[in-house]
Amino acid sequence: MLELYDTTLRDGNQGEGVAFSVEDKLLIIKALDHLGIHYIEGGYPGSNPKDMELFKSAEALELQQAAIVPFGSTRHPRYQPSADPNLLALLDTGARTVTIFGKSWELHATDVLRVTAQENIELIESSVRFLVENGREVIYDAEHFFDGYDDQPDYALQTLKAAARAGARCVVLCDTNGGRLPLEIQEGVRAVMAEINLPVGIHPHNDAGMGVANAVLAVQAGAAHVQGTFNGYGERCGNANLASIIPTLKLKLGIDCISEDGLSQLMETSRLISELANLPHDERQPYVGSSAFAHKGGMHIDAVCKNPRTFEHIDPELVGNEQRILISDQAGKSAILKKIERRYPNDDKNSPEVIALFDRLKEAENEGYQYEAADASFELLTRTVLNGYQPFFDLLGFRVIIEKVKDHSIRSEATIKVMAPGGEVEHTAADGDGPVNALDRALRKALERFYPSLQDVHLTDYKVRVLDTQAGTGAKVRVLIEASDGREHWGTVGVSENIIQASWEALIDSLEYKLYKDSREA
Amino acid sequence: MLELYDTTLRDGNQGEGVAFSVEDKLLIIKALDHLGIHYIEGGYPGSNPKDMELFKSAEALELQQAAIVPFGSTRHPRYQPSADPNLLALLDTGARTVTIFGKSWELHATDVLRVTAQENIELIESSVRFLVENGREVIYDAEHFFDGYDDQPDYALQTLKAAARAGARCVVLCDTNGGRLPLEIQEGVRAVMAEINLPVGIHPHNDAGMGVANAVLAVQAGAAHVQGTFNGYGERCGNANLASIIPTLKLKLGIDCISEDGLSQLMETSRLISELANLPHDERQPYVGSSAFAHKGGMHIDAVCKNPRTFEHIDPELVGNEQRILISDQAGKSAILKKIERRYPNDDKNSPEVIALFDRLKEAENEGYQYEAADASFELLTRTVLNGYQPFFDLLGFRVIIEKVKDHSIRSEATIKVMAPGGEVEHTAADGDGPVNALDRALRKALERFYPSLQDVHLTDYKVRVLDTQAGTGAKVRVLIEASDGREHWGTVGVSENIIQASWEALIDSLEYKLYKDSREA
Repeated sequence: MLELYDTTLRDGNQGEGVAFSVEDKLLIIKALDHLGIHYIEGGYPGSNPKDMELFKSAEALELQQAAIVPFGSTRHPRYQPSADPNLLALLDTGARTVTIFGKSWELHATDVLRVTAQENIELIESSVRFLVENGREVIYDAEHFFDGYDDQPDYALQTLKAAARAGARCVVLCDTNGGRLPLEIQEGVRAVMAEINLPVGIHPHNDAGMGVANAVLAVQAGAAHVQGTFNGYGERCGNANLASIIPTLKLKLGIDCISEDGLSQLMETSRLISELANLPHDERQPYVGSSAFAHKGGMHIDAVCKNPRTFEHIDPELVGNEQRILISDQAGKSAILKKIERRYPNDDKNSPEVIALFDRLKEAENEGYQYEAADASFELLTRTVLNGYQPFFDLLGFRVIIEKVKDHSIRSEATIKVMAPGGEVEHTAADGDGPVNALDRALRKALERFYPSLQDVHLTDYKVRVLDTQAGTGAKVRVLIEASDGREHWGTVGVSENIIQASWEALIDSLEYKLYKDSREA
Repeated sequence: MLELYDTTLRDGNQGEGVAFSVEDKLLIIKALDHLGIHYIEGGYPGSNPKDMELFKSAEALELQQAAIVPFGSTRHPRYQPSADPNLLALLDTGARTVTIFGKSWELHATDVLRVTAQENIELIESSVRFLVENGREVIYDAEHFFDGYDDQPDYALQTLKAAARAGARCVVLCDTNGGRLPLEIQEGVRAVMAEINLPVGIHPHNDAGMGVANAVLAVQAGAAHVQGTFNGYGERCGNANLASIIPTLKLKLGIDCISEDGLSQLMETSRLISELANLPHDERQPYVGSSAFAHKGGMHIDAVCKNPRTFEHIDPELVGNEQRILISDQAGKSAILKKIERRYPNDDKNSPEVIALFDRLKEAENEGYQYEAADASFELLTRTVLNGYQPFFDLLGFRVIIEKVKDHSIRSEATIKVMAPGGEVEHTAADGDGPVNALDRALRKALERFYPSLQDVHLTDYKVRVLDTQAGTGAKVRVLIEASDGREHWGTVGVSENIIQASWEALIDSLEYKLYKDSREA
């Protein structure tokens, strides 16, 4: 049995430009659990107090199979284990399995920790033992193992033996600096397996572009536990990318580390994590990028039309991806068809309504709309195109004024005029923390007179993504809003060069959807 | 002697979003020659008539060492070699060395070319022989070699023997679909070397994230010729990235494929090619990304300050890169010290300057500021805390109005009043694509009267991140702006519940920094 261990939330969070909030982390944990990851490293509670909050919040998640694991270091030389704040923080999370790292490279013991080689071994042994004695299953991460092994093989092995003696459940060999080559990794894994009777894990980084290869070749040499991050996020060049490793192990080496159903969610999960990291998805990424099965060369297109195997190393649907033929630069034709299929399984793909919807969606996606996280906007758009949709209100106009005078704080005010279906008009105004907030408040104030149920709706999430960032302040933005009425959550989207317009579209949809939903239930 | 063969201009040009002009290609050829690449594949003259133009223009380049090589296929079954338009186009380029590809996988012969297995072998042999008889040195690319070898090893080897018999100078084994694993590559290279007495080359793709590993392990198995592209451009997930392969061969395997001087231009060359491709440079790229030697975690920063070897697999200067310390909430006082050491070389962690700056930064980070992508804002903050900083202008006030009336399009207008140090006031207004764009334009319009050099500044990037997204439209946002004056790039940051205010802060800093920078240079 091969264990998959994700550290997107901890090591991935060290990547430049990555900073997950607690809410982001909870969503990622749910998605990774659903995918079939065995261990999810949640954070480093001894170093970052905010991470403790995550472990408390995560208790409420009803996970199917994944264990959420806290990460920490061996004890500080100054403290006994039972007084070490970092080890105590690990216990405080309440997690049954914990991961701690220690030093395998004497250079790090002497130059960074500033302890002797022997003291370092004692730090490892006493820290692991303390956690084991407190009923924890301990995963021991041997930081810089391969550099240490290269420098002084005996010493590096001794540090692992200390962890093993103290009761660690598995020892994980880290290529922390990411510069080791696959054959060196295989040699190290084999050397450890010859000396230590515990499952061996691998934790590679990507500084020589070998992260994925190092993980896969370690498994081929006998490693039974793989640590990586989604999309390869992580410090410097990142960690080994689980979104590449998992399908390679499953499809090419026949290792049953994930179910077929899990594997088919790979692309969706990878994209969700990009969205939450607020980073552009790497479209050239193996397996899960939109270019991964995109064919541009004429001869290649000709060949894949004759037989996809000619230029595709796997069937893209196995990882939730799809073949694309780049006739123009526009994407996602079959993705849209799939979306229609999912929601309208009985519709005929060639009916005029479905074709009209297809055209409208294609147009919207070209403008920058994305419906993965905006089901409510998708539903309203579908209703509009397929059945003709009567909106619950009509905008006559709005104006937002943002004013700053010298040292006074900035002031935002919105005025709004809407008309209900009966022809009644409401004209009102509100202040806000910013222009969007002011507009949001004014709109609700205007509509609540006609639709009191809107008082239950509150926004639970507001995200802005600048598309084509190189256009500077004139660039298009996409706004995603998540709303809730206490019983259900729904997402909406808006796109414009003007952030107010984009926010407005998403706001309108979030309230329209509530009214539409209530009318169907009534 | 190991040969480096670059196909950025041909295979790289097949990548999604990549389209080099003839001028781009000439610039790239000069840079690659200067770097020390041995063969530069210029294009496919038989398939793309524009590529013929390149070969004509390239004659005027006075290259130091590189050979420019045209690429083509074996002859069409319909033509004799001497009448095959594709082979004749190769001769027409006038190049002494030419590359042709043929099929090693019977599936491709029968399903794509629609010839028998035996006819395919004859196509290869007669095509290579024709080129050799016309005085050309022939590099033979065995397309899909590894898939073919997996399917029918004897047949795949026979296709290579045909090329060898006909006088090819070297046979290049292609993993065209990019799905093969490193140990399979080694097995294939060894099998060919046992049967064929010619230099063996390798041409990997990256569909399983193994492109770089496959190239390097092929060399370790005996390959003497490596084909790849810069930045890994290429169809689908791209080709093996030469910018990762070259330093790995040179620095880790001690293979003398490039001079030290050439290697030190690696990052510059890689960035030039990104610029010409008009694609954002992949900053997480091994060796040549700006994140490749960037440290964010506090413990890592502390360690690299003690000894860079602790978290750097090579000295970044060897490839023209440099160490960067990112100021983030995970960084500690060592990071700040490292940042200001140029100006305060004698400070230690506990000097009053470092403590004052550290406190100010902690405060700013708690408010949501992040300086890792905002060096200019960091510099201005440092100046303000350490020396007291006199800004170049003073805001008296601004007002932004966003107006939407029924079906008319939305309109954004900004008015602004600023005062220059002499007491002169400018009061002006501008429209924009959105409120931030309007404010940006009005501000520049007002300031250019006092500081004409601001005309050179343009924004190259604008990013918005909503912090604590659960606060809905009242949430704090962080704006990151990147600006350039054509010579330098700098980043600034702003944070507020009001997106206009956050954008304003980052805008102000981006212009202030330009004026500050100019004043120091003057």
